[in-house]
Amino acid sequence: MAQPYFHTVRYYETDKMGITHHSNYLRFMEEARLDFLEQIGYGYQKMESEGLSSPVVAVHIDYKRPTTFNDKICIEVHLQEVTAARLVIGYTMLLDQETVCTAISTHCFVDGNGRPVSLKRTNAQLYELLLSLTESQK
Amino acid sequence: MAQPYFHTVRYYETDKMGITHHSNYLRFMEEARLDFLEQIGYGYQKMESEGLSSPVVAVHIDYKRPTTFNDKICIEVHLQEVTAARLVIGYTMLLDQETVCTAISTHCFVDGNGRPVSLKRTNAQLYELLLSLTESQK
Amino acid sequence: MAQPYFHTVRYYETDKMGITHHSNYLRFMEEARLDFLEQIGYGYQKMESEGLSSPVVAVHIDYKRPTTFNDKICIEVHLQEVTAARLVIGYTMLLDQETVCTAISTHCFVDGNGRPVSLKRTNAQLYELLLSLTESQK
Amino acid sequence: MAQPYFHTVRYYETDKMGITHHSNYLRFMEEARLDFLEQIGYGYQKMESEGLSSPVVAVHIDYKRPTTFNDKICIEVHLQEVTAARLVIGYTMLLDQETVCTAISTHCFVDGNGRPVSLKRTNAQLYELLLSLTESQK
Repeated sequence: MAQPYFHTVRYYETDKMGITHHSNYLRFMEEARLDFLEQIGYGYQKMESEGLSSPVVAVHIDYKRPTTFNDKICIEVHLQEVTAARLVIGYTMLLDQETVCTAISTHCFVDGNGRPVSLKRTNAQLYELLLSLTESQK
Repeated sequence: MAQPYFHTVRYYETDKMGITHHSNYLRFMEEARLDFLEQIGYGYQKMESEGLSSPVVAVHIDYKRPTTFNDKICIEVHLQEVTAARLVIGYTMLLDQETVCTAISTHCFVDGNGRPVSLKRTNAQLYELLLSLTESQK
Repeated sequence: MAQPYFHTVRYYETDKMGITHHSNYLRFMEEARLDFLEQIGYGYQKMESEGLSSPVVAVHIDYKRPTTFNDKICIEVHLQEVTAARLVIGYTMLLDQETVCTAISTHCFVDGNGRPVSLKRTNAQLYELLLSLTESQK
Repeated sequence: MAQPYFHTVRYYETDKMGITHHSNYLRFMEEARLDFLEQIGYGYQKMESEGLSSPVVAVHIDYKRPTTFNDKICIEVHLQEVTAARLVIGYTMLLDQETVCTAISTHCFVDGNGRPVSLKRTNAQLYELLLSLTESQK
């Protein structure tokens, strides 16, 4: 089970409304996702060395309550679905046990030339790992 | 009928994959939305002077193809739905007639103290305007 | 004589003090510099196609007065010095005729492999052009 | 003696040259400065509650070598000068013992209405503290 990721809001991430600008949560999701992959042994460097990347093809964010400078947001990452062609990741962001936002990112798999590949065929080990982590969370 | 908004991708908006970082599209949506509201006579300053704001409560983005430095993205904004309590805005981003991404942002209405308000009651004029623009696009 | 560059401050460029976050001016400098190079016929694509780039080696910014959302900043770029090994560019940012900030960026010249090169030897044409623009401004 | 601050470079902080975009170092300086003030007992909240802030009036950065995604930059903050009217802070950023950049930020002191104040008169305690930390580093 992966540890949650923490992001402390920077001053420059706030806007003139005095709160964290909503675009930054998409960046926090990326930070938490890369940390999660690192934790399960598939960090960015390993992925890159295997010529594999998983670009974002869709995102969805539901904002529940604002945060501001110095807030330490706890981000839980959970694998929602993995197939040969795509990966769906869920995120729950919390501050003092209250939900800040929930989000989903959907990814495809491409090789070093940017061509879509089947994860099952190009990296069966990672596919099985993601699949087992997905199932174990049900 | 509002004019489309153009955003030319900045060098600092690219990432090490050589493309526009996906989080920036959420910022382009904000730019296009504020420009649209300005065009229909409800720019940020007017909204603020009336003590009204419309925070983002949800976003959804479908990425179709990447862009990079110096690409001039054409962003079309269309009102999808307006009720007393919320506003749904659609976005289509194009580069050389090809779709870069489609997106939706959902907004609520709050007063100067951050309390949810009925747009219909607090600003019937804006409500009617948005409603007419929504209907005229069907 | 190059035309000044204009940057209209985005909402997401403000911070919780209600003003443009000071780090963004470094980005505005880059925008204005790339626009200037484009105007004198040495845009990014041309530079890149010739395997030449000019990384920033130092910056200095003096902040005079704050700006905020929607302010249309006028940025004047002027070549201060060019030698075989480096380029010094000055910036004056104005809002309603008042100085917002003045800045300087210093650049070296590197080839496609990141090795320092003499601009005079690798691209005499650009060197002479920059030199003439520097001198004409004295 | 304050502990150094660490910033791990985010993916979205890189640019298409594959390195950390140079504008981000100005943000790392802010992070390190706020952390330093927190460590000496004058965190942002305390400053704000006392109606004092210290806006950046000038910055200078010398870039020595690039960094990239996942690099954990060590940032040392040192007080260079404090007077009634201004504060000068130095920064040394290191990666694997090699200098990434050195920088300086200069700050003035203003009250809640943005008017310049004498730190010595408005907050003698903080003035003395900063002075002692400056001297102890000589």
